[in-house]
Amino acid sequence: MDRRDFFKTSLLGAGAVAAASSPLGLLSGCAPKAKKSDVKLHLSFQHGTPPGESLAEKFDYMEKLGIEGYEPGGKYLLSHYNEIEQNLRGRDIKVSAICAGFDGFILAEDPAVKAAFDSSMREIIDAAGQIGSVGVIMVPAFNGQKPCLPHTMETRDYLVAQLRELGQYALQHGTTVILEPLNRKEAFYLRQVADAAAICRDVQCEGVKCMGDFWHMKEETSDYAAFMAAGWGYLRHVHIASKGDRTMPGEFPDTDTYVQGFRALKEIHYEHFVSFECGCGGDREVLVPAAVQLLRDQWAEA
Amino acid sequence: MDRRDFFKTSLLGAGAVAAASSPLGLLSGCAPKAKKSDVKLHLSFQHGTPPGESLAEKFDYMEKLGIEGYEPGGKYLLSHYNEIEQNLRGRDIKVSAICAGFDGFILAEDPAVKAAFDSSMREIIDAAGQIGSVGVIMVPAFNGQKPCLPHTMETRDYLVAQLRELGQYALQHGTTVILEPLNRKEAFYLRQVADAAAICRDVQCEGVKCMGDFWHMKEETSDYAAFMAAGWGYLRHVHIASKGDRTMPGEFPDTDTYVQGFRALKEIHYEHFVSFECGCGGDREVLVPAAVQLLRDQWAEA
Repeated sequence: MDRRDFFKTSLLGAGAVAAASSPLGLLSGCAPKAKKSDVKLHLSFQHGTPPGESLAEKFDYMEKLGIEGYEPGGKYLLSHYNEIEQNLRGRDIKVSAICAGFDGFILAEDPAVKAAFDSSMREIIDAAGQIGSVGVIMVPAFNGQKPCLPHTMETRDYLVAQLRELGQYALQHGTTVILEPLNRKEAFYLRQVADAAAICRDVQCEGVKCMGDFWHMKEETSDYAAFMAAGWGYLRHVHIASKGDRTMPGEFPDTDTYVQGFRALKEIHYEHFVSFECGCGGDREVLVPAAVQLLRDQWAEA
Repeated sequence: MDRRDFFKTSLLGAGAVAAASSPLGLLSGCAPKAKKSDVKLHLSFQHGTPPGESLAEKFDYMEKLGIEGYEPGGKYLLSHYNEIEQNLRGRDIKVSAICAGFDGFILAEDPAVKAAFDSSMREIIDAAGQIGSVGVIMVPAFNGQKPCLPHTMETRDYLVAQLRELGQYALQHGTTVILEPLNRKEAFYLRQVADAAAICRDVQCEGVKCMGDFWHMKEETSDYAAFMAAGWGYLRHVHIASKGDRTMPGEFPDTDTYVQGFRALKEIHYEHFVSFECGCGGDREVLVPAAVQLLRDQWAEA
């Protein structure tokens, strides 16, 4: 790759690329002009977060708490599409992101495993777009997924090309694919939000976005810097949990501070969801509302 | 590695580790309490930047421009130590960082190449400490350096362990080693400042720091976020050049904007050098002073 190619593939793309090169450029170029204090916290729950057996019970509970998003897994979405769609009617809840659920993985060396990813991921994307989800979360390769392409520039170029195709497909279906960095214990390949954001930039397709998960962001030196690196242009979803042991936010008061990350979300005028992906270390009827209140308080403080 | 080990190696280290987990935490924990407007720009030149044949001519020129730092290569430092030391006496110029100059590389598979790195790097560290340099710049592996350990978690753990030894050695000699991320064309292994900063955090040794180079930071989506990720705790040096083609800052006016990066340097109370590492596309007597003025203007604006 010569210098001209480098620029072509990584710097001089669509307007969004140039606009995302700095926080201020980004804000003046793309983001809504709202004041920082006008940026609202939109909370979302995964399927297992609220108490309740049925979807109706879960959604009733969520509405009472003012939770605006619901994040099902991809397999659950496909198998319960009609039930989800019917239960959301007339409610102030939208599907936020779809959490994975595909077979195989995009960096598989085995063509059959890659083909399984391609077809199952597209099936989930179809459903995600149809139900109005902001995107489908994906990890390029978990540590346990082998054989995996080696961690080289050639593999990154391949990933970028594959994601461009997938992103175009997602855009055609009214949604996106969302790259999730995980911590080293789960996925060495992609660990930092800045790296995921740089992949999005190189892909040059509005159908490929990224996210941050406060739990996995133990890989970051700064929650604030990580979200600023993604910016309004690339950040499409956020996961949250206690930083102590991935239970409810607030279960480990000494560690469960999200203010610096929230400050970045406000500064970039983040307009998507902050979604609970966490266990629960005690009484869900107590800890879930307490977590919601904690996050609202910290958002106000940020 | 179980969860406890993860925390042990990456989160619960010295005070600096906790303090660096967020910009505000960092500032309140470690950094000087100066106002942002009090943070000064300290410029440095590499050996080839100023006009002049002799060191005396170069240093005379630099002093007239108010340049406070001099960045020689490691080999030049060793071969001209006395000359440098004598010519700096009585001047308002210090040695900033030492730019590499060692043999071999730290991620070499070949034990002889690794041994060459170990011994030659330590020789430069000795001299760097003796002459009062803030640190010795190193790249873990250039693309052309082969055979190289594969890009895996095991290699990262090895790198962290090796850097800890090297950092302790550097500290004993009154200096540091400074990890430099490069762009993909030069070094795929380490491309982003946030990654370098995370390595510093994991090393848990004040003798291992990182830097950013505005030229290589084309890998970043945001100069601002990149420097914020490193923060006061880890950022020890900065390189600067035209973003257009690595000539003098200002030679490509459309791209040569450093304000967002400078804003981060001010916010983290950066107190080390911003050093020219660049070519010159025209008359050095004109372009060098113009570049200095441009950077001072942009620093004031940041």
